[in-house]
Amino acid sequence: MTFMGEKIIGIIGGGQLGRMMIQECSRLDLYFVVLDPAPGCPAAGLADDHIVADFHDEKAIKALSERSDLLTYEFEHIDADTLSELARQGARIYPHPWNLQVIKNKLEQKNRLSEEGIPVPEYTEVKDGDDLRTAAERFGFPFMLKSCRGGYDGQGNFRVDSSEEIDEAFSELDGGERLLMAERFVPYEKEISAQICRRPGGENRIYPLAENVHEKSILIKTRAPAEISAPARKKVHKLTRDIAEFFETVGIFCIEMFVIEGENEKPRVLINEIAPRPHNSGHHTIESCHTSQFENHIRAILDVPLGSTELISPAAMNNLLGQNPRGKTEIAGLEEALAVDKARVHIYGKKTAYRRRKMGHLTARGANAAAAMEKAKKASQKIDIYGKEE
Amino acid sequence: MTFMGEKIIGIIGGGQLGRMMIQECSRLDLYFVVLDPAPGCPAAGLADDHIVADFHDEKAIKALSERSDLLTYEFEHIDADTLSELARQGARIYPHPWNLQVIKNKLEQKNRLSEEGIPVPEYTEVKDGDDLRTAAERFGFPFMLKSCRGGYDGQGNFRVDSSEEIDEAFSELDGGERLLMAERFVPYEKEISAQICRRPGGENRIYPLAENVHEKSILIKTRAPAEISAPARKKVHKLTRDIAEFFETVGIFCIEMFVIEGENEKPRVLINEIAPRPHNSGHHTIESCHTSQFENHIRAILDVPLGSTELISPAAMNNLLGQNPRGKTEIAGLEEALAVDKARVHIYGKKTAYRRRKMGHLTARGANAAAAMEKAKKASQKIDIYGKEE
Repeated sequence: MTFMGEKIIGIIGGGQLGRMMIQECSRLDLYFVVLDPAPGCPAAGLADDHIVADFHDEKAIKALSERSDLLTYEFEHIDADTLSELARQGARIYPHPWNLQVIKNKLEQKNRLSEEGIPVPEYTEVKDGDDLRTAAERFGFPFMLKSCRGGYDGQGNFRVDSSEEIDEAFSELDGGERLLMAERFVPYEKEISAQICRRPGGENRIYPLAENVHEKSILIKTRAPAEISAPARKKVHKLTRDIAEFFETVGIFCIEMFVIEGENEKPRVLINEIAPRPHNSGHHTIESCHTSQFENHIRAILDVPLGSTELISPAAMNNLLGQNPRGKTEIAGLEEALAVDKARVHIYGKKTAYRRRKMGHLTARGANAAAAMEKAKKASQKIDIYGKEE
Repeated sequence: MTFMGEKIIGIIGGGQLGRMMIQECSRLDLYFVVLDPAPGCPAAGLADDHIVADFHDEKAIKALSERSDLLTYEFEHIDADTLSELARQGARIYPHPWNLQVIKNKLEQKNRLSEEGIPVPEYTEVKDGDDLRTAAERFGFPFMLKSCRGGYDGQGNFRVDSSEEIDEAFSELDGGERLLMAERFVPYEKEISAQICRRPGGENRIYPLAENVHEKSILIKTRAPAEISAPARKKVHKLTRDIAEFFETVGIFCIEMFVIEGENEKPRVLINEIAPRPHNSGHHTIESCHTSQFENHIRAILDVPLGSTELISPAAMNNLLGQNPRGKTEIAGLEEALAVDKARVHIYGKKTAYRRRKMGHLTARGANAAAAMEKAKKASQKIDIYGKEE
């Protein structure tokens, strides 16, 4: 007989991902302490305790580690050096801090994947204006310009459509001051997300592949299962497992990929980005799968058996983004959205709303992904989230 | 456009039912304050605030009402007079306090149902030993002896199997001091639970009927859907709606019924008990239905559209009861239970375990109810919960 419960899990970051970890796992005899600088952060109300501190506050991170049986994080832009040091001293921190060191720098991420023979879009480092012009010549237009560090939810990505935009892109992303990289634009057919969850010993499960739609580099919606051919799925699964093995992943990783399929052609799959944590494109798993990405993440870091990732029902997820103006959050139309049967609304409890901020999402189940998408669209159109000017 | 969110809901009682209300509804832009005498009660860690006070502390209940947009309760044995008074003063309290006044006294409950022409097992009041002997003569053996007030989870019920047990039953239930009632034993075939959820205007939804197994008057397991004939189902639905209409139910009610079916006979349905709240026999709805009983309860008291109660998957629920000795809770075998695919474990976080205390439950999904029952049994046999002697 084993005793897994009554463990205290420290989460660095108290946003919606931390919140959903708690919502999904409080029933497993687990307790949660979050570290986040915002007193009213989404996870604060549900956590057993909240250390109000900056993500780079070494002392606070150590205090969190001392209070917790193990640590995880819901956010990449934290102090990876402190985590590495704590891990060296014996703290259980998952995913491994060295994964974070590699992944939080997009250039380093691509370098390491390439070394492992994992296919990524063609890319090059951009230290200055000369590098940028060379890249533009090499890749043609459009191409992608990206910050190597710190970008998320579309911040830090710029699609350069013509030579006129080169200077704007460079200054927008603080080129010259911050390290940038350029990438060949992939005229992909589908962007696929693969969530893989892996225990320390190697046991792993892949979730049903999901298909994403972005707008201005922010995820807008996801459908599951993805509509791709069996050979493409096989390739995606192999790459996903290869990446998890390379990182010796513990917990959930989301791997975003471009899939290009043509008639009489072998499918092509290129890795776009890796997130070493539960990911927006896996939120549907709360409703669509036997075990959500959040629960399996926590099971994996505890090193206990993973739950089934089998699909219960096709589903579609729509993000609920903030609108203008900025201010104290107001949510209109929630009641109308609840009237759409079989749509489940998730509001993150963020106190301040602003344009394009992720304020919530909703998931609809359906007999197939197309029906679920219709329902999710209908429900999400009812909701408006914006700030009340004060 | 309406604004339903950011409401504060006060819950009297911070046990597992309050806890699951929060687990299921924190994503709906709602905030929760619980009132419970135990500092470490199950709902405390997840609630936004906790008023530590007795269920009969009038001042504390008023304070809870002042801090909340509306009140509900997860427990019948509370101060119904104070709630009635607050409701008269305009507080929004659901279910209606007058429902509670009727239901918390089993004799009064049966009297009112009978008046409405709703079939119940034959019963009679037992004020003293003479009443009891008269009842025994009238009903024969076995018959049921019950406390009219305060009993739950099998406390307060005694099945009297022979004349030798009459005195024991009477003294066990404090006969003469507490009001008792005797009931004719119904040799029922099935005990069915019907959960109905109703909004103030009358909109209502009935959950898939569930079938219960009790041991010594404690619910041990539930399967959904129940296996009953279409005519029996029709009768159950009609009685369920009649009862909800009589009480002008707001929120969820669970109606436990005895169903007797024979070949070439019309099905007989007798009402056993009513719970004016989410009920143990509806826990499976978290996994088996599009909207759980907890979410629909909260939607109903907010008077917003109810969610679909349609079955996603057949399911079976097993309670996890405490074992000897009494003491600080220890949970063994949780990890082994998680290894049973598609079983979802719910631990309530009660700090003290003792024999037959409800410490958690688990729900398994399956292709049919029988397969789900197999899985739930297998998983629940892995878990032992008991107290660590100190």
